[in-house]
Amino acid sequence: MDGTRVKPAGLYKGGFFRYFIFTMKKIALTGIKPTGMLHIGNYFGAIKPALELTREYDARYFIADYHALNTVKNPAELSAHIRQVAAGWLAAGLDPEKVIFYRQSSVPETFELTTILMAFTAKGLMNRAHAYKAAVQENTEKGDDPDAGINMGLFTYPVLMAADILLFDSDVVPVGKDQAQHVEMAQDIARAINFNYKAEVLRVPEVSVRENVAVVPGSDGRKMSKSYGNVIPLFAPEKELRKIIMRIVTNSQGVEEPKDPESSQIYQLYKLFSTPEELEALANRYRSGGMGWGEAKEALFQAANRELTPLRQRFEEIMADPAGLDTILARGAEKARPIAARTVARLRKAAGID
Amino acid sequence: MDGTRVKPAGLYKGGFFRYFIFTMKKIALTGIKPTGMLHIGNYFGAIKPALELTREYDARYFIADYHALNTVKNPAELSAHIRQVAAGWLAAGLDPEKVIFYRQSSVPETFELTTILMAFTAKGLMNRAHAYKAAVQENTEKGDDPDAGINMGLFTYPVLMAADILLFDSDVVPVGKDQAQHVEMAQDIARAINFNYKAEVLRVPEVSVRENVAVVPGSDGRKMSKSYGNVIPLFAPEKELRKIIMRIVTNSQGVEEPKDPESSQIYQLYKLFSTPEELEALANRYRSGGMGWGEAKEALFQAANRELTPLRQRFEEIMADPAGLDTILARGAEKARPIAARTVARLRKAAGID
Repeated sequence: MDGTRVKPAGLYKGGFFRYFIFTMKKIALTGIKPTGMLHIGNYFGAIKPALELTREYDARYFIADYHALNTVKNPAELSAHIRQVAAGWLAAGLDPEKVIFYRQSSVPETFELTTILMAFTAKGLMNRAHAYKAAVQENTEKGDDPDAGINMGLFTYPVLMAADILLFDSDVVPVGKDQAQHVEMAQDIARAINFNYKAEVLRVPEVSVRENVAVVPGSDGRKMSKSYGNVIPLFAPEKELRKIIMRIVTNSQGVEEPKDPESSQIYQLYKLFSTPEELEALANRYRSGGMGWGEAKEALFQAANRELTPLRQRFEEIMADPAGLDTILARGAEKARPIAARTVARLRKAAGID
Repeated sequence: MDGTRVKPAGLYKGGFFRYFIFTMKKIALTGIKPTGMLHIGNYFGAIKPALELTREYDARYFIADYHALNTVKNPAELSAHIRQVAAGWLAAGLDPEKVIFYRQSSVPETFELTTILMAFTAKGLMNRAHAYKAAVQENTEKGDDPDAGINMGLFTYPVLMAADILLFDSDVVPVGKDQAQHVEMAQDIARAINFNYKAEVLRVPEVSVRENVAVVPGSDGRKMSKSYGNVIPLFAPEKELRKIIMRIVTNSQGVEEPKDPESSQIYQLYKLFSTPEELEALANRYRSGGMGWGEAKEALFQAANRELTPLRQRFEEIMADPAGLDTILARGAEKARPIAARTVARLRKAAGID
C-alpha cells in the first residue's frame, strides 16, 4: 500500500465528466489502559504522540476497561480510573468529533470476536507472549509454581487485544516497541482466519513502532513510572505541582558551582515544557554557575504550570460534568458499534454461524 | 437447598387473607455441541434423559455453536450441524414453549461474561482441565511439542462453559461424569468473583452427575460413537435404517444354536426400543435356539422403526421449513437475552464498569 487508499468516483455535471479523487485516510487504533491517574510521562510519551497521529489517520481510540479488570479488582478504583483517563485524554486535546473515542466495554462485539479468534489462535503463540513469559520467569526465580498468581485475563490478553484491533479494520496500530508483539500476534491470527476461509475476512494490520518516544524522567531521575512512585501527576493542582517539583532529587552541588544541564532531571523535564530560547537560556544559567537548584526548579514549575494550567482547567470542567462525559463516550460507542457489528457479521457468515 | 425455592405471596380477597405458595422450579442448563448428525447413542444417552429433566426443572437448553467452532472449521458443515442438531432435539420432543431453547451465538452476553470471568480464573485451573491434559498427553506420547495443534478455544473452553452456566443463574447443571469438572470450575470461578466483590453476584451452581446413563452399543459392539464409525443415525430413512441394522456384526453361531441375549448387541439395542413383554419374548427366542441373526435383526429393525418413524417425520418437517426453525430459535434467544443481560449488568456494576 502506498499510504492512502484511493477511491475514484465519477460525477456527471453540466455536460462534462468530472473526476473526483477521494483520498481516504488510513485507520489507526490505539487502546488506553485505565490503570491509574495520568502523569506527565503518559502525556509526553503516549498522549501527545497519539494526538499528533489523529491529523494523519482516521483514528479510533478506546479506553480498554476490560484489560484493566485483569489487575484492578477494586470497583471504585476501576470506575474512577476509567473516568479520569477518559477526561484526561479529552482535556489533553482529543477531539471526539474527529476521533472515534469509546469504551471497550461499550462495544460488546469485541468479546464475540475474541471468542471466534480463540478458535484460530495456537496456544503455543500465547506461551511466547512477553508479558506472560515475564510473569512465569518471576515466579520461577522465586521458586513458585510457574503459573502462580497468573489469571486467564493476562494469559489471553493478546487475543482480546487482537479483537480490539481486527474489529475496526485497522490499517495501522502505532505502538511502543514493547507492544509490537501484540500487533504481530493479531496479524498471525487474522492470517490464520483468512487462510482457513480462503478470503480476506479480516484486514491484516500493519505495525507502526514509534521511535524517538520521549523518555520522561521521574522526580528521582529514573524513568517516570507509577511503579517507581516518582510521577508528576498531569492534573495536580498548582500548589501540589510546585511541591512535587520542589522535591525533585538533586545532587549536592552548591549555588556557585557550574552545573551540567544534561545530567539533571530538572533540565530534562524543562525541555518538555520550554521554548528553544528558554531552554538555551536555562542551559546557560546551569553552565555559568551562580544558579541554585531552587531557581532551576522554579523555572521548571513556571513552564510546566503554564502548559498544564489550561489542561487542568479542562480536566476539572469535564470531571465536574459526569453526564457530559458519559454522553461523549456513548456517542463514540454509537459510531464504533456499527463498524464492529459489520466485522462480526462478516466473520460469522464466513464461519457458518449465520 | 431443599429442591424448590419457595416464594410466598399474600393476596387480599373477599374479606379473607388467602396465602398462595408459588413453588419455583430450579433452573437447569444443558449445552448441546453441534458437531455432527445425531445418532441413537445421543438419543438414549443424552436427549431422552435431558427431556425428562424438563418436567422437574425450569430448563434452558442451548446449541453451543461457538464451542463447535473450535473443531469444525468448514462453514457449510458447521451451519448444517447447527440446524440438524436443533431440528433433532425439537423432533425428539423438546418443547420450545416450556424450555428456553436458543443458540449460544444469539446471546452475545455470553462472550462479555467470558471476558469478565477470565480476569478471575487462575491459569493453573485451566492447566488441570481433563480435555486439555488429554491433548497434551497425546502430543507428549507422539514426541510432539506438548501444545502442538491445541488452540486457545480448547484451552479456554471451561471459561466459556462457565459463562454459559453462570449467565443463566443456573441452580443445577446435569452432566455426565466426564463433564463434572467443567461445572466444578464454574463453581470455583463464581466463588472467586463473589469473594472479591463480597456479594453473591453470581449464583454458584450445583453439579448433578447423571448416573445409570444408557450405554448404547454401536453396530460393531463397542460404545456407539462417531469416532468409531459405528453409529445408527437417529433420522436415517427407513431403508437405510434397515440396511445398517442388517450389517450389525454378529458371531458365527448357526440358526439352531441357543444364543446368549446379554452378549448380543442386537439384543442390547432391542432393549432400548421394546416393551418388557417384547424383550422377554426375544430373550426366549435367543435361548431356545432355532432363531437366526437375521430374524433378531428384523425384530430390532421393526421396534426401532416403530419408535423412530414419528421422530424422522417431525425432523423432516422441521428441516423442510428453515424459516420456522429460525423463528423458534430466535424466540428462544429473545427469552434468554434479558436474563443474560441482567447477569452481565449486575457483574459490571459490581466490577465498577458501569
